Amino acid sequence: MNGAESLVQTLLGAGVDTCFANPGTSEMHFVAALDRIPGMRCVLALFEGVATGAADGYARLAGKPAATLLHCGPGLANGLANLHNARRAQSAVVNCVGDQATHHRVLDAPLTADTEGWARGASHWVRTARSAATVGADAAVAVQAARTGPGQVATLILPSDTCWDEGGVVAPPLPVPVAAAPAPTTIATIARLYPWDGATMLFLGGSALSERGLRAAARLAAGTGVQLRTPISNARMARGQGRLAIERLPYPVDAACAVLADVRHLILAGARAPVGFFAYPGKPGRLAPATAQVHELARPEQDAAAALEALADQLGLPDAAPPATPRPEPARGAITSEAFAQSLAALLPEQAVVVDESITFGRGFFRGTFGAAPHDWLQLCGGAIGEGLPLATGAAIGAPGRRLVTLQADGSALYTVQALWTQARERLDVTTVIFDNRRYAILQGELTAVGANPGRTALDMLDLGRPDIDWVRVAEGFGVPAARATDMATFNDLFAQSCARSGPFLIALAT
Amino acid sequence: MNGAESLVQTLLGAGVDTCFANPGTSEMHFVAALDRIPGMRCVLALFEGVATGAADGYARLAGKPAATLLHCGPGLANGLANLHNARRAQSAVVNCVGDQATHHRVLDAPLTADTEGWARGASHWVRTARSAATVGADAAVAVQAARTGPGQVATLILPSDTCWDEGGVVAPPLPVPVAAAPAPTTIATIARLYPWDGATMLFLGGSALSERGLRAAARLAAGTGVQLRTPISNARMARGQGRLAIERLPYPVDAACAVLADVRHLILAGARAPVGFFAYPGKPGRLAPATAQVHELARPEQDAAAALEALADQLGLPDAAPPATPRPEPARGAITSEAFAQSLAALLPEQAVVVDESITFGRGFFRGTFGAAPHDWLQLCGGAIGEGLPLATGAAIGAPGRRLVTLQADGSALYTVQALWTQARERLDVTTVIFDNRRYAILQGELTAVGANPGRTALDMLDLGRPDIDWVRVAEGFGVPAARATDMATFNDLFAQSCARSGPFLIALAT
Repeated sequence: MNGAESLVQTLLGAGVDTCFANPGTSEMHFVAALDRIPGMRCVLALFEGVATGAADGYARLAGKPAATLLHCGPGLANGLANLHNARRAQSAVVNCVGDQATHHRVLDAPLTADTEGWARGASHWVRTARSAATVGADAAVAVQAARTGPGQVATLILPSDTCWDEGGVVAPPLPVPVAAAPAPTTIATIARLYPWDGATMLFLGGSALSERGLRAAARLAAGTGVQLRTPISNARMARGQGRLAIERLPYPVDAACAVLADVRHLILAGARAPVGFFAYPGKPGRLAPATAQVHELARPEQDAAAALEALADQLGLPDAAPPATPRPEPARGAITSEAFAQSLAALLPEQAVVVDESITFGRGFFRGTFGAAPHDWLQLCGGAIGEGLPLATGAAIGAPGRRLVTLQADGSALYTVQALWTQARERLDVTTVIFDNRRYAILQGELTAVGANPGRTALDMLDLGRPDIDWVRVAEGFGVPAARATDMATFNDLFAQSCARSGPFLIALAT
Repeated sequence: MNGAESLVQTLLGAGVDTCFANPGTSEMHFVAALDRIPGMRCVLALFEGVATGAADGYARLAGKPAATLLHCGPGLANGLANLHNARRAQSAVVNCVGDQATHHRVLDAPLTADTEGWARGASHWVRTARSAATVGADAAVAVQAARTGPGQVATLILPSDTCWDEGGVVAPPLPVPVAAAPAPTTIATIARLYPWDGATMLFLGGSALSERGLRAAARLAAGTGVQLRTPISNARMARGQGRLAIERLPYPVDAACAVLADVRHLILAGARAPVGFFAYPGKPGRLAPATAQVHELARPEQDAAAALEALADQLGLPDAAPPATPRPEPARGAITSEAFAQSLAALLPEQAVVVDESITFGRGFFRGTFGAAPHDWLQLCGGAIGEGLPLATGAAIGAPGRRLVTLQADGSALYTVQALWTQARERLDVTTVIFDNRRYAILQGELTAVGANPGRTALDMLDLGRPDIDWVRVAEGFGVPAARATDMATFNDLFAQSCARSGPFLIALAT
């Protein structure tokens, strides 16, 4: 058995049975091993950022890691931005990177790079295999690292000779660490603060946003009057009919500070204390007022849902049904952000998975869709735009039978547009809505905020027109059927049709 | 004057007047400064790998660096693969990366990453600006570092407060170091070996492949009978009628070893001793036989053309006209690699610039085009595929008035396909030929070489069909007119028409 075979067998033994791949020459023994050993679903990506973003989406839905297969340092580099996003989302990824043979590195051939150095900034765990004999054990540790709760990016670098040499040994799966529940003393300390002195806010992230977490949060809200908020971006949130509706903190610093201005106790459950996405001259970085006391009920890597339950139990709070939000009728007429949210709330299929990289046009989508059928809502967590299409691709593979709906800003979509081809090839049930505003709208707002009165040069750098991108042709070029909508009635029809048929579809929405 | 303004003024003062940009929020003061201060041509890219690959291409033709403008660590990460290629090509790049404000880093906001750590592996020089007061001086050193011969990747990281704070100081340009000529003793030592004992080969790279270098190489070849070869990949090579035709070393290890088998003296002029692109079980990494003596006439960073001239002078060799290669007629009939090279040799416009990322289909193009009109030939130097379209984009801007011809494998084109849009927006005279074979042909060959008899899984990972990518639609979607050719006569017509009109055009060649 060679090293590559021990790698594949070890991954399969540990439950890793999906691989998002963009292989190269140094991975041919790995590919050959995948070919010989049944059980691994290999999904080809045309660009590494698609593979890594898909692995992020897969983990969020499947609840276990996929493997990636990338080619040398530069192939890893192409996947780093979405690994960064996966790391911020606490997604489990077994990131496999083939590399130059151990004895070939010294020759500094053209593709030789500092693969480990590049991996570190986007990984919780990095190891370079030293020989075929250890590859199996390395892979077992990588899976364990990836599954260390809620999830981590584990990068295993595989010099090609560690794959082709004989002497591979399959390693048994290692125990998966269970996400720790907060200590009873932590729960008790926070419970003792009740009734809280002044305005109190629960700031919820991670598993606090699961169905279970939201049930406990509903008990706390109904029983104590505590305010609830989530961070701007969340890896996965259960939403829709029958689930507690929670607002996010607004993205603009001033608006976020206004929401938090009167908070005296900020209780963190699976979320970090809120900070500005960027710094701005004269504006604060920490968004909670300096006078607020911050209490940590559950750290992001802990089981926040269990912590909320324990707190509600400690306070003796009964179950509470969340307030109902009516499901609206689809909107008609002109396309606006509000009208779009209304139609989405009306038409979203039961148990759909929404991937939201809508940026500026979509700031009202969240609030406008509380009344939709039960669904999950996924967001970009690391701020590196260009993850929406890959995230949906991987999530569709991790959640078969569920409709994926990607709400996608046009500028961001262009970073990893190649994901459409993988959706077509794998016949994934993904409806992509492109908000086709032909500009980096968020940057036009930011430039104005800087006090600049933008001239020709600045507008040229924030404008995606001249030529306008024809999204229908681009999608069709990659094998995804597509159509354009310039009013809500057309959108409603296209969206409903896309959800009723299998396979991917793209709607270019003129905004 | 704020830091951003001092940056722009310093760059312009040092002759850097072109910027390939994909900005984000943290770069808005930079954008505002570019807007206020005339003189910088800003070229927008839809993906950072397009910006960095374009900067590589620009430097190779313009002979001076462009700036880039990238957004935070993940934006840099998206540009790393083509920075790696630029570094290997010894191209001058002033790589500007905006980042979180100095005081905001500690808050670890979502886009915060190890920007410096990622930059190092692809840069010769890295610095993070500490304050607005030093940005000008930092930029002057960055330009000097980039222009240190023949060229380097200099990464300047700019926390947003160093751009928005007042107190910027414009720095005067620093002296550009001249590429050192080899020491006379080196020339004399190698000259003393003549007449060489046994087969001798000059291995030529860098400026040895300029018109001047080739004239000196022609004297040496005619006067001494020395064999001539170039590495597999070269940043820029003068070719065509009236220039010395030199073969490259073949890419396959066995073929390269066969070419070098009888060499007793290997004289390096601007090239490194040849090594295998990858390692293979049981095959050598160093391609020259162990019995060959290796002599270093000029290191890659030295002026190899001057070294060749000095050696020819020392040997007292007269000028020598290179052997003439006849210019063929265009090929007709079925599309083959040989037929394509023949048509290209026939139809290539005078002073065209060829960007060659043709991979497998193009292995015969080089030899088949010796008889073309005078032109320059550019290649991917770092092996990170996905540079062809960006390289041509930047080269077109660096060489106005010359027709760019991109010979582009389909699989590689898909990494950075967004470059087509920049070509359309800037109305660049680029003819892109996509070799549309719908597979990673090189990997199918490599997999077979591994001894595997590929099954379904392996073939799926090396196959770009199902669905076939419709290149005409993709190109048109990005605003580039396009057509498909399934025979040479159609290709000849499309190619000639594209060269006669201004702006970009794409030909999907069914191979």
